[in-house]
Amino acid sequence: MIIELTQLTHKLVAQNKWGQAFDLIKTLPYPDVGNVLDKLPSDAAYKLLMTFGQEQRSHIFAYLNPVKASELFHLMDGDQTIALIEGMDHDVRADLFNRLTEEDRNTLLAGLKPAEREDIRSLASYAEKTVGAIMTSAYIALEDDLTVEQALLRIREKAADAEIIYQIYLIDKQRRLKGTLSLRQLLMAEPSAVLRDIMVTDVVSITTDEPQSQAIKLIAHYDFLALPVLDGEQHLLGIVTHDDVLDASQEESTEDQMLLGSVRADYPNSTSLKDASIWLLYRMRVFWLVILVFGNIFSGAGIAHFEDLIESMVTLVFFLPLLIDSGGNAGSQSSTLMVRALATGEVRARDWTFMLGKELSVSLLLGLSMAAGVSLIGFWRGGAEVALVVSLTMVVIVMVGSLIGMLLPFILTRLKLDPASASAPLITSICDGVGVLIYFNIANLLLDMPSI
Amino acid sequence: MIIELTQLTHKLVAQNKWGQAFDLIKTLPYPDVGNVLDKLPSDAAYKLLMTFGQEQRSHIFAYLNPVKASELFHLMDGDQTIALIEGMDHDVRADLFNRLTEEDRNTLLAGLKPAEREDIRSLASYAEKTVGAIMTSAYIALEDDLTVEQALLRIREKAADAEIIYQIYLIDKQRRLKGTLSLRQLLMAEPSAVLRDIMVTDVVSITTDEPQSQAIKLIAHYDFLALPVLDGEQHLLGIVTHDDVLDASQEESTEDQMLLGSVRADYPNSTSLKDASIWLLYRMRVFWLVILVFGNIFSGAGIAHFEDLIESMVTLVFFLPLLIDSGGNAGSQSSTLMVRALATGEVRARDWTFMLGKELSVSLLLGLSMAAGVSLIGFWRGGAEVALVVSLTMVVIVMVGSLIGMLLPFILTRLKLDPASASAPLITSICDGVGVLIYFNIANLLLDMPSI
Repeated sequence: MIIELTQLTHKLVAQNKWGQAFDLIKTLPYPDVGNVLDKLPSDAAYKLLMTFGQEQRSHIFAYLNPVKASELFHLMDGDQTIALIEGMDHDVRADLFNRLTEEDRNTLLAGLKPAEREDIRSLASYAEKTVGAIMTSAYIALEDDLTVEQALLRIREKAADAEIIYQIYLIDKQRRLKGTLSLRQLLMAEPSAVLRDIMVTDVVSITTDEPQSQAIKLIAHYDFLALPVLDGEQHLLGIVTHDDVLDASQEESTEDQMLLGSVRADYPNSTSLKDASIWLLYRMRVFWLVILVFGNIFSGAGIAHFEDLIESMVTLVFFLPLLIDSGGNAGSQSSTLMVRALATGEVRARDWTFMLGKELSVSLLLGLSMAAGVSLIGFWRGGAEVALVVSLTMVVIVMVGSLIGMLLPFILTRLKLDPASASAPLITSICDGVGVLIYFNIANLLLDMPSI
Repeated sequence: MIIELTQLTHKLVAQNKWGQAFDLIKTLPYPDVGNVLDKLPSDAAYKLLMTFGQEQRSHIFAYLNPVKASELFHLMDGDQTIALIEGMDHDVRADLFNRLTEEDRNTLLAGLKPAEREDIRSLASYAEKTVGAIMTSAYIALEDDLTVEQALLRIREKAADAEIIYQIYLIDKQRRLKGTLSLRQLLMAEPSAVLRDIMVTDVVSITTDEPQSQAIKLIAHYDFLALPVLDGEQHLLGIVTHDDVLDASQEESTEDQMLLGSVRADYPNSTSLKDASIWLLYRMRVFWLVILVFGNIFSGAGIAHFEDLIESMVTLVFFLPLLIDSGGNAGSQSSTLMVRALATGEVRARDWTFMLGKELSVSLLLGLSMAAGVSLIGFWRGGAEVALVVSLTMVVIVMVGSLIGMLLPFILTRLKLDPASASAPLITSICDGVGVLIYFNIANLLLDMPSI
C-alpha cells in the first residue's frame, strides 16, 4: 500500500499538484508519511513536510531514514530547525543531535531555550548501545503526597508532553524515586487516597551505563511498559519505553545475524537492500571475506608441511573438506549456544570449568556418532587403515572444534570484548587450520609413512 | 539476586520452614516467584504456590517453565485446576491448554463455564507462529455511542479483567471494529464528547492466520501498545499486545541464530544451557552435523575424480581450503542479506532478476579483490601459472557462491518453505562441492596436464 501511495505521490509532485499530494498523505500514520517522504527527492520531501503543522512535522521527521533526515535538516532555516527539534520526543532528538556535524550542533544549541539545551546535552552524551542512549526524559513524575484525584488532574495537564502516561513515577523533593503507579491502578483507586499509601515501592530499575540488552531483558521479563533509569543516588534520570526496547531488540538481532553471516553490521541498516548501492554492498562484505582468506592461509601452510604425505596417498585429500568442515560446524554450534547463554545470563564467566566438562562429554558423543558414519566411507575408499585414521581424526576434530567454539566466547568476555564477535566464519577458519594439523599428524603416525 | 533467593528458599523448605519461605518470596514480582519455584522440587513448589491467593496463583503459574508447570498441574485436583485456569490471562491459558494431554483437556473443559470453554477452544485452535496463537481476548471493547465520561466509568469497571486498558476498541452491535481511542486521548477529551466523533477510524489491524512476524513488524513500525485482530468481515476477535510481541521477537531471533549456528531450534529453549542434560544437547546438535557430513561427501567425490591431477601437482591442495571456504563465506553473506530483506519485505520474490543483476556486479568486485590478494600467494607457492589458476578460480567461486546464496532464499520462498532455513552451514556445504569442481576443472584446463 505504501509503495502505491509513494508512486502516486511521486506522480502528483512531478505534475506540481502539491495540494493533491498533501491530501493523499496527510491522514496517514506518521511512520507511513516518513516512508513516503523517504522515497521522494529532497526538495519535494521538504516542501511536503513543511505543509504539515509544526507538531506533526516533528513527529514525521523522527521516522525519516537518517540520510533523508539530514538532507531535509539542511534545507531548513535556523528557526525551522529549532521549532522542529523542540517538538520532537526527547530521546529521538538526542539521537538526531548525535548525528549532526559539530557546526550544526553549535548553531542549534545557540537557538534553544536553556532547559531544552541541557536536556539534549545530557541525553546525547551517553555511549551508544547503553541504556542512556535510548532513554527519554518525557515521563510523568509526581510528588508522592498528592491524592489520586490531584494526580489524575496533573496527568491530564502533562499528557501532551509525555511519551508514556500509563506509568507514573513518584519522587521526593530531591527527585529520588520512591515508587510507581500504573494509570490502571490510579483509575481503580479511591479518589481521596494519597499516592504514597498505594504506590508500589519495590521498583525494578536500571542505570544509564548498563547495556541496552539488559533493559530489553528486564522489560521482556516483567512485561513492563517502561523501566525507570536511576543514577547511583536513586535520582530519576529518565525512562526506557517498550517501543524503544522492541526497536533495539530487532536491531540487535539483525546485527547478530549479520555477524554470523559474516557481513559487517556497522553500516546503516536504514537503507534497504534493494536500494543499496553496489559500492555499499561491496564494503559491507569485503572486510570479513578478506580477513577469512588470511585465516585460511594457515590451513594452507599446514597442508604445505605435509605435501610428501599427501603425494604418497592422495586418497587422504578426499576426506579433507569433510573433516575440517565438521570441526568448524561443531565449533560454531557450541559458540552459538554459549554466546546466547552468556547474553541471557544463564551461564556466567565463572562457570567455564563446569561447562568445559559438559562440552567434553557432549562433543565426545557427537564425534563418535560422526566417526561411525565416516568410517564406512573410509573403508570403502581406502581400506581398514584409512577408516581408522579418518574416524579417529573425526572424534578429535569434533572435540577440539567444540572446545574452541565453547571457550572463545569466555575468553572474549574476559578480555572485555563482545562474545558475539566469536562469529561462525571466524571459528570455521580457526578450526580449519587446527583440523588440517590434526588430520595429517594422525595420518602420519598411523599410516607408517616415510618420515617427513 | 534471584539465585540467592532461590538458594535461601531451598534451604528453608528443606528445614520445613514453610512460613518463612513464603514470607521471603510473597512480595516478589510474579516472574521472579516463577523463577524461584522453577528451581524447587515439584512437591515443595506446589506447596508454596498453593500458599498464595487464588488470583496470584494463576499469574505466577503463567511464568513457570513448561515442564514445571505441567508437573504442578498434575499435582492439583480438579477444582484447583479449574480455579487456576479461570484466573489466567486468556492467551496464556490457551497456550497451556495446547500443551495438555487429550485426557487432561477433556477433564478441564468439562469443569469450566460454557463461555470460558468457548474462549479457550477458540484461542487454542490457531496454528503455532500465527497471530491467532499469541492473541488474547482480554481487551476493552465499547460501543461507539457512549460519551467520554461513560466510557471512563466502563473502563474502570472492566480494568481488572483486561490485559491492556490503555487502548480502547469501539465496536458496533455486530462487534465490527469501527475505531480506536487511547486512554490518553480519552483523558484529554471533553467529558461530554461522543466516542464516535473523536475516535480514530483509520485502524491498522491484522488477521488470525498471518504470521507472528507480521504482528511484530506492525507493532514495532507504529509503536503500538496493541494491535487489533479481525476476521474477514471486520469482526474484532482479539488483540496482540506489545509484551507478547517482544517475547515472540526474542524467540524468533533465538531461533534464527540457532539455525545459522546449525543447532536445531525446535527444542524447548525454556531449559537453560547450564541445566540441559548432555543427551538433550547431543540431540540438538547431532542432526545438522550429520546432514552436513553427507553434504561434504560430494566435495570428496569431486576430489576423487581429480586424484591424478592432484598427485601430479600437490601444491594445488594448498589452496583448497582457502578457495572453497571463500565461496561458502560469500554465499552465506548474500543469503543472510537476502533472507533478512525478504523477511522485512524490502525485497519481494518477484524482484529476483533485479537482485541477480546486482549480485553479479557486487560479487565480481569481491572476487576481483580477493583474487588480487591470493594471486600473490599463488605466485610465491607455484609461479605464474598457479597464480593465474588460483585467481581465476577465486573470481568464479566467489561469484558462483554468491549466486547460490542469493537464489536459495528465493527458491525456498517459491517452494513455500521458510527462506531462513538457507542456513550458513548448508550453503557452505553446497559451495564446497561446487568449489572443488570449479577449482580442479580450471586447473586441469590451464595447467595443461595429462588428461584424466
